[in-house]
Order: sequence, then C-alpha cells, then structure tokens
Amino acid sequence: MSQTILTGIKPTGLPHIGNYFGAIKPALSYADDYTSFLFIADYHALTTFRSADDIKNHTRQIAAAWLALGVDPKKHVFYKQSDIPEIFELNWILSCFTPKGLLNRAHAYKAAVQLNMDTNKDYDLNINSGVFNYPVLMTADILLFQATHVPVGADQKQHVEIARDIAESINQKTGFSFTLPEPVINQEELLITGTDGQKMSKNYNNIIPIFIEEKQLRKTCMQIVTDSTPVEEPKDPDTCYVYQIFKHFLSKSDQHALAKRYEAGGLGYGTVKQELFECIRDYFKDARQRYAQLIENPQQIDELLVAGSNQARALASQTLLKLKNQLGLLR
Amino acid sequence: MSQTILTGIKPTGLPHIGNYFGAIKPALSYADDYTSFLFIADYHALTTFRSADDIKNHTRQIAAAWLALGVDPKKHVFYKQSDIPEIFELNWILSCFTPKGLLNRAHAYKAAVQLNMDTNKDYDLNINSGVFNYPVLMTADILLFQATHVPVGADQKQHVEIARDIAESINQKTGFSFTLPEPVINQEELLITGTDGQKMSKNYNNIIPIFIEEKQLRKTCMQIVTDSTPVEEPKDPDTCYVYQIFKHFLSKSDQHALAKRYEAGGLGYGTVKQELFECIRDYFKDARQRYAQLIENPQQIDELLVAGSNQARALASQTLLKLKNQLGLLR
Repeated sequence: MSQTILTGIKPTGLPHIGNYFGAIKPALSYADDYTSFLFIADYHALTTFRSADDIKNHTRQIAAAWLALGVDPKKHVFYKQSDIPEIFELNWILSCFTPKGLLNRAHAYKAAVQLNMDTNKDYDLNINSGVFNYPVLMTADILLFQATHVPVGADQKQHVEIARDIAESINQKTGFSFTLPEPVINQEELLITGTDGQKMSKNYNNIIPIFIEEKQLRKTCMQIVTDSTPVEEPKDPDTCYVYQIFKHFLSKSDQHALAKRYEAGGLGYGTVKQELFECIRDYFKDARQRYAQLIENPQQIDELLVAGSNQARALASQTLLKLKNQLGLLR
Repeated sequence: MSQTILTGIKPTGLPHIGNYFGAIKPALSYADDYTSFLFIADYHALTTFRSADDIKNHTRQIAAAWLALGVDPKKHVFYKQSDIPEIFELNWILSCFTPKGLLNRAHAYKAAVQLNMDTNKDYDLNINSGVFNYPVLMTADILLFQATHVPVGADQKQHVEIARDIAESINQKTGFSFTLPEPVINQEELLITGTDGQKMSKNYNNIIPIFIEEKQLRKTCMQIVTDSTPVEEPKDPDTCYVYQIFKHFLSKSDQHALAKRYEAGGLGYGTVKQELFECIRDYFKDARQRYAQLIENPQQIDELLVAGSNQARALASQTLLKLKNQLGLLR
C-alpha cells in the first residue's frame, strides 16, 4: 500500500535554521519514501487575525521560502489550505462525529483557558471558536488525503491522536474507511540550539534567520553566546553553542575535525563564528537567490500554488464524494 | 434596498398541518415581498446521524413536500445546504470571529448539558461538536446570502441574535459589511392546536399529517379529543379543538358561520369532524397529487434542487470571494 505523508506549514514569518533542520529538511526528504502533501495552513492563521496584509504577505513569503528551500512540484503536492473548499465541508462533517469532550481536552485550548484562570478571568475570555475547533480542522486536513503519516513535534502529537479518534468515530458510525494517521515524531527538532543556548525559537529571540542580508547574518552569528575561555586554551565542543549549531551543516568527519580543533586549543570563538557565518551563507546561497527571484515574481508563486491545489482537489473531491454518498447526502 | 429572507428547513419527516400554517405557508408567501431563499438543512441532520437512508429519504421527502405545497423556482431560490460548499468555508471563517463563550450560552447546547447534569453525568457526555457549533453554521447559512430577515419560532430567536453578534464581530475586525439579519417571529406558529388540544407537534403525537392516505386522514380527524356535550346542546367553538383546527382553513365569514352552528346546538362533533376531514382532504388535494408525482420521479426533485443550488452558488461565491479578498486569503 502506498504511504502518504502530510505536512502543514503555518504562515508565520520566514524560517530560521532551526525550522530548516528541525522541520523543513525532513519534510522535504519524506518525498523519497512517501507521496508527499505540503500545504500552507493560511486558514489556521485566521484564528489570530490581525490584518489582510499580514496573512497575504506571510503566505507568499512562506511559500517562496519553501519553494526556494527545495519544494519540487514534481515531487510534492504543494498547495494552500484556503484553495481547498473540500477541507471545510469535511470539517463540518467531522465535527458531527467529534465528541465535544475531545476538544475540551486539547492542549492548546486548555493552555488558553489556564491563562484566563490564572488571572481570574472568565475561562473562555478572548478564546474564539476557531481556536477551540482547530483540532477538527487539522483532522480534516489529514483525513481528506488519507494521510498515513503526519510529522509533528512532540508537543503536537495530541493532534494526530485526536485525528485518529475522530477517524475511528466516523468509521465506526458510518462504515467509511478513513485511514488512521500515525504521528512521525522528529526527535531532532528539539535539538537545534539557538544563539543563547536555548532551543532555537522565535519566542526566545535567539534565531538565525535564513533569508536575511549577509551583513545581518554575520552579525547574528557573532552574537552567539560563548564562555570566556581564552583563545589558546582547549575548548569543549559539546558545551559550545557555536559548535552545536555548526554541526548540522557538517558531515560526521567534518564534525570530528572541528571538534579536534576545539580540543587542541588555539581556536578563538571569533574565528569559528566567522567560519559558521560563511558556511551558512554558502549553504543557503542558491536558496536565497531563488527566494529573492520568487518574491519579486509573486505570480510565479501563485501559479505553482494553483497547480498544486488542482492536484490536491482532484483527490480531495473524490474522497468527499465517496463520503457524502456514504452519508446519504448525495442524490 | 432589496430585502432578502432566508428560511432553513430541517429534513425531519413529512409536514403536518401545524407546520403548514405555522411555517410553510408564511415562508412561501414571503416571496411576495422579499427575495426568498429556502433551503433544506441536510447537514444539520448530520448532528444526529442515524443512517444514510434516513438522511437521503427525509431530504427527498421534504423537498417533494415543499415543492408540492408551493415552492416555485421562479419565485424562490430553493436548494439544499450540502450543495453549497461556500457555506462551510464561511463557517470556518466565522468561527475565527466567534467568541467561544457565545456558543457556551446557546440554548440547545445548554439544554443538552443540563440533561447530563441532571443525571449526574459528565456535562458534555454524548454532545458532539456539530451540536456545539451549530449556531455558527446557521450564521454562515444566513450571512452568506446577506439575508435581511430570518423567520424563526420564538424559541429560535437566539440563533438570529448570535448571527448578528458574529456579523458585528467580523465586520468590526475586518471592515467587511455583512448584513445584520432581523428575526421575523411568526406568532401564529404557537397557535396551531393538535388533536389533543396541546400545540400540534410530532413530539406530542397529536399531529394531522398532510401527505397520508385519505382513510388514515379521516381516522386522525375522528380522533380529535372533544368533550361529552350531547349533540343537541349548544357548544363553545373557542374551547373545541376541532374548531381551533378548522378555523385555519376558513375565511373569516366561514369561521363565523361555523361558530354560529356550534352555538345553535344540534351540531354533533362527529359531523364537524367529518366536515373537517373533507375540508383538509380537498384543501391539499393538488398538493397530494403533486407530492405523489414527485416522489415517484426523484430525478425531477434533484433537477430542481440542482438548478436552485446553481442560482444560490452564483451569489454565494461572489460574497465569499469578496470576503476572502478582504481577509488577505486571495492572490
């Protein structure tokens, strides 16, 4: 049986190297073993709507970034969620087979409630129904394409569990055969170190963005926190954040060689930071050129997304049609 | 400005004369003053899914019944909800602008919770998310067609209030201009008496169905509860359930004439029940013929529904397009 993997991409700003090694690179490589669906979850962004420009720009930027980093329309079905109306019809159908209690227990909703409780506010204050229902929409994203596998961070595992629960519920009550998706947990994601030594994350303001000016990139590399061991002394690569970041760009043997230089003494942090900067700059050179070219030609991005959504809808509409027939909603 | 009225029809069994005078006749007559949208809320029925045959048969029967009773494709836009994918996409959009607290306070959901509490069960036991989210879907039904008026029973007024609240919320946050719908409360609905003197309702098992065999119709009329006043004595039409039902079929002057016969004495309940039976039989004669003809030719029903949904979608897709543009979801 063919295996299908589905990855949702939140349109929230440009990726950093933590995103790249933790999520983007593995997501792109799944196409070697699976039928691969990659989509921009722009309707997700609506749960925290700020402005139309915000959604439009983020969607274009994130599409350009993924295309630049290796999305290949010949290998990936690449589309945006808002181009697939079938997802939203399925979302309603699934909600009728989703125990409300399942959503009461979803982590993201519970965290929002806890925040209200901690500050003595009404427990649902400022929580919109989109936030509450998001696990159902995510289930629709997954089940519509009968995805067998869904890559998630460890903290997102519950979403796949909810999707399985809903799939089991509708299968059992209607006789339909939705595939139960399996989570694929990418352990590496947790291990990308930020410039301050914490996990690299926009929330910690410790990221190394991919698509910034060279000068800015160098500055960011130079800001990586290091200890005050003098140049001449031996250093421990395993406790050095520069090394922890650098290693993702290096082969095993190059990692080993760099570690030796640390341990030998005489390697200054400034030197290794400069080397890291040059390495990152060169590693993403082609991607940065492609990104710049795409962002100047948004109609090229749009055409690729339209082609992808046509591919996706051809499959989506078949599944929805079968399901509606099974439910008695068709003539 | 043109006024638009929108009526949702639950596909739950064939109508009785209480439905007819309380809801169907007024709904059909709105087309004289408004642009009229009438739709079968088949996706509503999914919140209590029993079987595909159930949904399919009820949908066809209710469509045939309304067509037989006077839906005219030249006067009404008549469609089924499941043929309009735009409703479900709008449903998601609206949910992102719907405070969850608004849904916590919806009557139908609260009643279901109360039932669980009263029996010491988990408050959300056996409540699905479709039930919880139904007010948002209903809002999508209404706002998508910029309905200015929505006829509702007094107990459904909250749904229109919720629709107004959601419309105000999204208008205020996005600058879109959804029409705020007004409820049209048909007071008469409460006043159709059943065969036992209570409000006519399937729940009370006191209905006079429209589309049943003549013999069965006569039997039902004969079962109307009356008191034991002897034939020869004067009777009070205002306390007689037969009269209370009969009057809906009569002009003011015929009502008056019948009341006089009650008051004069000598009119037996059996006689007036027989007259009522004949009156109902004749009143719905054409409708019963049309219904029988349609139910034998379901493809005729289907064609009419398809034509209606094409009309509806032409408008729906325009509104959705404008909204998506306003939200930054379009290229």
